[in-house]
Order: sequence, then structure tokens, then C-alpha cells
Amino acid sequence: MTDLPPIPIILDCDPGHDDAVAMLLAWGSPRIDLLAITTVGGNQTLAKVTRNAQSVAAVGGITTPIAAGAVRPLVRPVVVADGVHGETGLDGPALPPPSQPLDARHAVDVIIQTVAARPGEVTIVATGPLTNLALAVRQAPELAHTVKEVVVMGGAIGVGNWSPAAEFNIVVDPEAAQIVFTAGWQVTMAGLDVTHSALATPDVVRRIGDIGTRPAAFVCEALAFFAETYKRTQGFDAPPVHDPVAVAYVIDRALLQVLQAPIDVETQGRLTTGMTVVDRRLPAPVDCRTFAATGVDVPRFWDLVVDALQRIGEPKHT
Amino acid sequence: MTDLPPIPIILDCDPGHDDAVAMLLAWGSPRIDLLAITTVGGNQTLAKVTRNAQSVAAVGGITTPIAAGAVRPLVRPVVVADGVHGETGLDGPALPPPSQPLDARHAVDVIIQTVAARPGEVTIVATGPLTNLALAVRQAPELAHTVKEVVVMGGAIGVGNWSPAAEFNIVVDPEAAQIVFTAGWQVTMAGLDVTHSALATPDVVRRIGDIGTRPAAFVCEALAFFAETYKRTQGFDAPPVHDPVAVAYVIDRALLQVLQAPIDVETQGRLTTGMTVVDRRLPAPVDCRTFAATGVDVPRFWDLVVDALQRIGEPKHT
Amino acid sequence: MTDLPPIPIILDCDPGHDDAVAMLLAWGSPRIDLLAITTVGGNQTLAKVTRNAQSVAAVGGITTPIAAGAVRPLVRPVVVADGVHGETGLDGPALPPPSQPLDARHAVDVIIQTVAARPGEVTIVATGPLTNLALAVRQAPELAHTVKEVVVMGGAIGVGNWSPAAEFNIVVDPEAAQIVFTAGWQVTMAGLDVTHSALATPDVVRRIGDIGTRPAAFVCEALAFFAETYKRTQGFDAPPVHDPVAVAYVIDRALLQVLQAPIDVETQGRLTTGMTVVDRRLPAPVDCRTFAATGVDVPRFWDLVVDALQRIGEPKHT
Amino acid sequence: MTDLPPIPIILDCDPGHDDAVAMLLAWGSPRIDLLAITTVGGNQTLAKVTRNAQSVAAVGGITTPIAAGAVRPLVRPVVVADGVHGETGLDGPALPPPSQPLDARHAVDVIIQTVAARPGEVTIVATGPLTNLALAVRQAPELAHTVKEVVVMGGAIGVGNWSPAAEFNIVVDPEAAQIVFTAGWQVTMAGLDVTHSALATPDVVRRIGDIGTRPAAFVCEALAFFAETYKRTQGFDAPPVHDPVAVAYVIDRALLQVLQAPIDVETQGRLTTGMTVVDRRLPAPVDCRTFAATGVDVPRFWDLVVDALQRIGEPKHT
Repeated sequence: MTDLPPIPIILDCDPGHDDAVAMLLAWGSPRIDLLAITTVGGNQTLAKVTRNAQSVAAVGGITTPIAAGAVRPLVRPVVVADGVHGETGLDGPALPPPSQPLDARHAVDVIIQTVAARPGEVTIVATGPLTNLALAVRQAPELAHTVKEVVVMGGAIGVGNWSPAAEFNIVVDPEAAQIVFTAGWQVTMAGLDVTHSALATPDVVRRIGDIGTRPAAFVCEALAFFAETYKRTQGFDAPPVHDPVAVAYVIDRALLQVLQAPIDVETQGRLTTGMTVVDRRLPAPVDCRTFAATGVDVPRFWDLVVDALQRIGEPKHT
Repeated sequence: MTDLPPIPIILDCDPGHDDAVAMLLAWGSPRIDLLAITTVGGNQTLAKVTRNAQSVAAVGGITTPIAAGAVRPLVRPVVVADGVHGETGLDGPALPPPSQPLDARHAVDVIIQTVAARPGEVTIVATGPLTNLALAVRQAPELAHTVKEVVVMGGAIGVGNWSPAAEFNIVVDPEAAQIVFTAGWQVTMAGLDVTHSALATPDVVRRIGDIGTRPAAFVCEALAFFAETYKRTQGFDAPPVHDPVAVAYVIDRALLQVLQAPIDVETQGRLTTGMTVVDRRLPAPVDCRTFAATGVDVPRFWDLVVDALQRIGEPKHT
Repeated sequence: MTDLPPIPIILDCDPGHDDAVAMLLAWGSPRIDLLAITTVGGNQTLAKVTRNAQSVAAVGGITTPIAAGAVRPLVRPVVVADGVHGETGLDGPALPPPSQPLDARHAVDVIIQTVAARPGEVTIVATGPLTNLALAVRQAPELAHTVKEVVVMGGAIGVGNWSPAAEFNIVVDPEAAQIVFTAGWQVTMAGLDVTHSALATPDVVRRIGDIGTRPAAFVCEALAFFAETYKRTQGFDAPPVHDPVAVAYVIDRALLQVLQAPIDVETQGRLTTGMTVVDRRLPAPVDCRTFAATGVDVPRFWDLVVDALQRIGEPKHT
Repeated sequence: MTDLPPIPIILDCDPGHDDAVAMLLAWGSPRIDLLAITTVGGNQTLAKVTRNAQSVAAVGGITTPIAAGAVRPLVRPVVVADGVHGETGLDGPALPPPSQPLDARHAVDVIIQTVAARPGEVTIVATGPLTNLALAVRQAPELAHTVKEVVVMGGAIGVGNWSPAAEFNIVVDPEAAQIVFTAGWQVTMAGLDVTHSALATPDVVRRIGDIGTRPAAFVCEALAFFAETYKRTQGFDAPPVHDPVAVAYVIDRALLQVLQAPIDVETQGRLTTGMTVVDRRLPAPVDCRTFAATGVDVPRFWDLVVDALQRIGEPKHT
């Protein structure tokens, strides 16, 4: 597999514990060429998640440019998940100072320019609210044709976490999500249906801890905090590690079972705003470009994460 | 089981092929005391479904009073399911003329008065839009305490038939459904999650046909039409027979697995209006009075239907 | 004018200071035959406004049947205007005990039966939330043809009091209002556009006080309280006395300028729920049966109120 | 007045007949320094209105950079006003080919960079849907502080043209409008309340025709077409020339009476989506930065337009 050329991606994220793992997975995997990291307000404020991205980069030796993006959702007020991610947005591990400055550009410009430089090649993996992607595709509508595909961690079929029917990344900026799911590009949704299976069980944590590197220890410390808040707020015995599932799917298409189906986002509901509405009633039209994950190979997922963490510190992509 | 006194119910319905089976099940079962049949515009116009109720009564020898109710939804325009149930609302079998006149009262008055006569005892089974129940409980709020329970065929967890996320009976009058699910009485929702398993397979149809009575033949003719439209419109190999599942649950509590969970109805969504929103994130409060069916014992269900059909013609409840 | 037969009306209200004046105007005017008073939760809870209606009847010698109606809006939670009308809903004057029992029937039944007894003759004047009227016309759709007309105090063109764009009576039960404005009967809306001119100035209060009867003194005491709350909550120098404007229009059609225009009610807005949407862009279709008041003859209005109060105590309608 | 330095503005528009007049007014007025013209899909598609802007520039000798912006609203589908503005968006006069190429940048970048170059100095006048402004302020939130002010032609108090309660520019992209009215910058709304008075009467048209230049003749031809469609579609005897009112207000603050009041935009209504909701119930908070025009000095407005047209052809700003 490593003989294939790595897949160029932009990782748009709001670190966040699981975003941190997603960053390290993208950086450590030989199958990924991490072109840029862009940040968006979500799990915490933009300032905090951007700083966290820089800290994770420092921990992992990630030298990819990092650019800050939208400070708030398109239309709605800022909401953060401090109950899940803590005051910093990445509570638990020590967060080292940045080892590199931010890219001077806005995330939206980074996305537009990065895709324009390699039309048809770049995958965007989004693990936070979809504000940056929405702004980018509305300013540069050609992205709908020039992006290779979009893989989103967010949404769900028929369940929710932030509300009975909505997942956090979508409900925080439902208008942005509606834009992204209906923009015309290929979008695959890795939602709660699959990420709720990607649990960091004690066995998983032990495997990561056994790697023995600083980045691996950082992940263990982050997962320890995450486990505690998921237990307390949602009753989980082990925390679901959502975001790296989207990255892992880029690495290995066999990781997810996906259903081709029309997906749209509710923006007007009294109870359901932020719900991803997946129409499963009949087979999708053949030209339907939205896909929803319905199953995940959990052991394979953790193998990819562990493998990537083991490689961090080695020379990359050579 | 037949030693227990039969359970007094009002059947509020919009016949409709599966409503017809529900009527016959309620009438034929020794466990049910069918106090009244009330009709509501739904599968077809009120005039048509009321006439159909009378025809089914004539076929089955049902002597329960039949009262017509709401001609239209509370707020929204009339919608009918003629694509599924045909021009009459019960296309397929011959529909004999009424053998008894309608009750002169409005369905809402019948509901209010029937419950008032036996406070704490009467179960309402609703297999159409919930307009009559909503009007009744708004005019007589004490029903929330004096009705024994409400069992609804309608809604779903996470799926839909009339739209990606909504079931027909609910979406036709979502405001009425919101009223009914939040009125405070005990409500059990037998939604698509279970009724989509209650398929009238060829084996089932054969068992019913073998009964050899006129009512059983009527059911077979109705199911033949229903099979055709479900095949054509929704791709089902055998038609789901939704409505009698709600009656069957009154007969046998073990028929359904049910989840105690808050249920509300979306009335404002762009995509999700008419969705029953079931909050499954955490265990329900102990005083939660709404329940959603999550599984059904299909063989047991058909046994109950066949048994009831076999009894029709025999002396009842003696 | 007194040679004409009086106009039979049902007054559906939620007393309420201005409702009290409306009751006395209807009772005292020789042009009105007050068939029934029905109450609805609004300015205060149903129990309180019904009790207030009985107190006002006792003060004014009103012997019309009084029937209690809806305890709550169709869909939405109960909202009361205690900031305007006080803890009793009619704070200020002493509220005497009832001089007659309530009608045993529900307001909805009273409306349906009263209209049915005199088809084509009865005007309904509504000065509270429109829940009773909505329940009545949905249960008995023939009312749309058998009621002579409906006159509503509520709504506005382009202004609001309870929110920037909505008036209290409408916003409390917008679904009921939507039903009433689109039911097909003739509806005239006397909204804030006109009632904000019907101010109980010191001159008006002096004229009423000079009448010297107990009912007139009761009105003065009520208006004194109303003046204080309108000053404090909305900055009015004299209180607008909304509800009797609707009654006065039945007495004298020349009292209001009215515009024939389609009227509907917003039920889904984030900011505008409860707004009466009057389409003034082009002349109304000739068969349009909704009318919005745009101007009022204020001196004539107060003359009618004073005249009615002067007659209370005299033999009525002879 | 001409001794004062001219006011630097960006004109964001969708020409459009009245936008064309606004462009010429901005270019011809010695009080305005027209830094950039940005276009947005609205009256017609982006391609057409951008081409129209270039044609108007060619007619008027306008050498300001022109940059194309958003091709579609933020969230909703494209709507155009071809019934009012015709197939080209500027039907009527001959439309000459561009005399200058477009600016290579996106309108959003032009707005961000132009304001950044002169912080605190630049006024944005918007006469189309507010998509570009919304994208700009969401990508560069500092604009809320660095823009001098925003003047919008759009919206209304209590009336509408595209729907009973909404004006075209707002209803086309209500989410963008909500963003713009609540962004924190100073916004003045010149809505239908005033622009419906800015009628191009025969006298006005004669004055413009008498100028005798090619740009003036172009305006007359545009107004002739505009008169015909406004007569046909909305019954106006003379066409309201909305857009230049916003430019004129920058030239002369005395032109409009304005009310300081909170303004927000309805985005969720069934009937009222796109309505500008102006809260006139109480005096605005002193720090309220939104203003709604309530009156216009029509003769003064036309004087400004005629004066500007007379100057076109003369050396500018010297």
C-alpha cells in the first residue's frame, strides 16, 4: 500500500481531543500528504483551537502550515463544547508552546488556493463545524468541481449527541453544513453511526501507551480526560474517538461501509435543527454524490492509528 | 388469557387497508371490548374513510357505533394517501353498503363522553392522523388523566415513509401529533421501526385465505391491492400491515419491545416536519410516559390476526 | 338606529381590563343581543379570566350565560399578560363574587350550538386568543358558512406589542389564529393600528366617571390600573382600550375604516411568530373575506362606550 | 459642500435599472469617491449583472475597478427578478461592450482589502442582496469595526414587494441580511418606506432627458422600461428608483429621516422570511447601531441625481 503516492489532504479541524488524534493520524500515515491544517471555532473558540493545533503540531513534529479560519458560525451564535473538551478545548495533557507561527492567510484562502494549485487532487477532511468549507465554496464555487472529495466527521443517521437528532459539528453551524452537503462535490459523512463504535477502550489505550513516544503519551493523556467527560456527560464506558475515523477512511476505503443516499441538513426545525437528513427510502439516484457511513471496521481503525503514532518521529513520506 | 375481562378501547382510524385489518382484529379478539370506532380524514377524505369503516363493519358484522370526526388537519391542508390506498381509500375488495347508520355525534364528543363514562379504563388506539385526539384533549384536558392509555400507529425512530424522516399519520397533522405526544397521558408509539416488519407475506395471506370466511376473503383482497401499491411506490416485496400492530399490542403486551423515552414531534422543520423525535441519549426520566416500540414478535402478531379473523362470525365476548 | 333589531353576538374573551369594557359595551348597547359570553385562557389563566367574567357580569347585571373554554393554546405553552393585567387578570377594582353559575357546557359546544340555532345570524366577537374559535370551526367546519361574521380584536399591520411584529392575542396561540383567519368565514381584524388610538385619556375617564353608576365606577378603577401598567411597560401616556373596539364595530360599521386584504398568520418565524401578515401589495380578490381595520373614529367609539354604560341598570332590549 | 473631501465608498450592486442610476450618481457626485464597484447575483444572474455594471461604466465613463462576487445566495437557491428587470437584468437601453476588464479579484477580497487599506474611512453602499458583505464580514470579522458604515437599499418597515412582508434584496438572501444587520457595524436601511416615494415621475424623466448627454439618455431609456414593468407587475403609476437613495444618503445626511431601532431579519418564517424586523416599541438602546429610514426628501433626492448626471463627462473630483 505504501507504494501508492500519498493522498493530498487539507485537514479542517477544531482541536479538540479527537481532532488531535486526527492530526497525528494524518501526519503519521504514509498514505496521507497533509498539505494544510485549517482551524475553525467549534469545540472551543477559534483562538483556543488554533493554539491547540499548534501545540499538537509541536508535540508531533508536524510542520504542515496551520491557518486560522472562521471565528464563528455563518448565522448562529458561537457554541462551544467545553463540557466535553474542557476550558482549553484540549484539557488533560500539557500543551506546549507553538513551534511554528501560523500561516498569515485566512483558512478560507488557504483552502481555495491549495485546491486551485492541484485541481482534482485534494481531499478535504473536515472534523469541526463546516463554516470554513461553506465560506470557501460560496466564494469559489468552482471548488465543487476541483476538490477531489470531502470527508466529514459529523452528523448521523437517526441519532444525535448535542440534541436528540443532531450531532455537535453540524448543529453548531447547520447553514454551513447544508451548504457543504448540497454543494455538489462528493461528500462522505462519517457520523455517529460509526464513530460511536470507535471507542478508546482500555486495550486501545494500552496499545498506544506501549508505543512509548512523547506523541503517544500525549494521546493517552488526552484520551484519559476524554474518557472522563464522556462517562460523566453521556454515560459512555469508553470514549468515542470520532474525528480520526474520517482521516482513516481516506487512508483505507475499506474501513467504512457507506450508503449512497441524498443527505441534506435541517436548518429550521424546532427540535431537529442540525440533523443530517439521509433519505434511505429508495436506492439513491446514480449521480448522487453524498454518502453516509453505516459501519466501521473498528480493529482496522485502531491499527491505522497505532501505526501512524509509531511512525511519528521517523522521516516522513520518503 | 380469555378469562380476563376484555379491554375497552376506542379505535380512531382512517380505513385504509391496514385500518380495516385493525378493525377486524379489534372486533374479533376476545381480549378487546370495542366501545366505539371514530374516523378521521387521512388515508382518504373523511367521507371516504367513514364510508369504508361502515363497509368493513358490514363485512365483519361489527355493531360498534361509528362516528365521523375531523374532516381536515388542525392547521395544515388536507393530504391523502391515494397513491397507497387508491381512490376509495380501500381499493381492491368490493365495499358493501353500510349495515348501520353513523352515530350522530362528532368523534370528538364520542371520545370525550366514552372516556368520561369509564374514567381510568378506556384505551384509545389511533391508527390515523391524530386530529380527533388532539381536539378532544384540548377541549377536555382531563382526558390526559382519565384515559387509561393511548397506543398510536404512527411515527418512527430515525426513518420515514412520507418523507425521509416522517411517517404519514404524523406528517399529515404534525401539530395534532405534537399535542398527543406531549399531552401527559401514557402514549406508546408503534412506528415504522416495528410495522415495517409486519409484512403480509404470501404465507400470511395463505393462512388468512384458508379461514374461508367472507371477512377473511375481504382481508385477502385488500392485502392484494396493498401489496401491489407498496411494491410499486416503495419497493416492498410484501406490504407492511401497520395499523393492527397497535391493536395487537393492547391484546398482548409482550408483542412489542418498547423503549421508555421522551417523544416530541417536529412541526417547524424544512425537511423533518412530522418526524417523531425520540430522545435515546440517556435513560428516560422515571416519570416519562411516552414509549416507542423498537421490536415486534411478527409470528405472534399474525397469530393474533388470524385468530381474530377465525372468530368473526362466532358469538363474541361470551 | 334603535329601531333595528339588535345583532346577536357571542363574545369570546379573556377579561382582562379592556375585555371587561367590551362586555359592558355589548351588554349596554341596544344594538347588541349578547347571546353568550365564552372565556379563554389569555390575559390570565382560564380560571382567573372566567372568574373575572363572572365578576364583571355581577357588576353590570349581565345575565347572559357564561361558559369556560380552552385552558391553553392549541399547540404552545400557556402565556399570560400578568405584567399588563396583574395577578388576577383584572387588578384594580374590587371583584365581586359571581351572581350566576357558569354554563355547564364547554365554550366550544356553546359556540357550535348557539350558531347552529340561528344559522347565518350570529356574529362572533373575539377579544382574546382564538383557541375556542379554532377548536369550534375544526370540530364543526360548517361554522365557516353559518356564522354571520367574526370580528377579532388582535393582530396589527406592521407593528406589535408582545414582540416587534406580533400582538398578544395572536402570538399566544398563533396556530389558532391561523385557523381563524383562513377558515373561510368573514373576519374583520381590529388590530393595534386602530386600538392604539382608542386611548382612555383623562377626558374619557372623566366622562365615564360622571355617569355615576357602579359599573361606570368599576370601569374607571379598571382603567386607572390599566393606565399605570401601560405607562410603565410600554410608555403610553394613556392606555389603549383595545377590546371594545371590536364590539363597537358591530354596533356601528362606520366606526372603522377597513381594508379588504388577504390575512394570514405567521406560525414558524424566529422573530415574527404571531404576526398577522396582511397583503397590501395589490387590490384584494373580490371574494376575499378578510378585512383589516386601518382607522377608527375615536370620539364615536367613546360615545358608544359612554352611551352603553349609561344604559346599564336600565331595562335592556325593550 | 464641494470643499469637503469626498467620501470613499464601495458600491456593492446587482445592476439592475436602479443600480445603474446608483452607479452614475456615485460616479457623478463630487461628494463621493467611488473606490470599487462589486457585483452580486440578484436582479439577474451574476454574469449578467456584472456585464451590466461594465456596460454602465462604459456609458458613464466610470473607471473604478469592478469585481464580480457571489454567484448565489449563502444558503438558498438563486432567485432573479427578471419580471422587473428583464432578460438582461437591464432591459431597455442598448448595453455597450465593456470598456475595461474586470478586476481579477473576488468581490469579497476587494471589500476586505479596500477597507483594510483605509481603516475607519470606507462606507459600503449595498444595493443588491447582501451575500458579498456577509461573506466578507464572516471571513474578516474586523470589518465590523473598520468599515465606517454600511448603507443598504433593502428591506422595509411593515411592507413588502416580493412577498407581503419582504423586500427583494433581503428575501433573496435572508441569512446574509441577518448577518449584515447584526454584524455590529453601523447599518442604515433605506427600505421601501422611503424608496417607494422616490418615483421617476414624468417631470423627473423630463429633467433627466433635458440634460442631453448619452448617460442621461441611457437613464431615460432604462426608466422607460422600468416604468412599464412596475406598472404591469405592481400597479405603480411611476417607477420607484430604489437604489440611488442609499447613495444619495451618503452624499447628504439630511436626505432621510432615520429611526434608531434594533433591526433583525426573519429567516425561518412560513410567510415572513426576508422581512426586516424593526423594533419600534420603545426607544432604542443608546448603543444601537442600526437605523431605518422613515422619510425622504424626494425633490432633494432628484436634485442630487440630476446634478450628478450633469457632471458626468466633466473632469471628476478635481
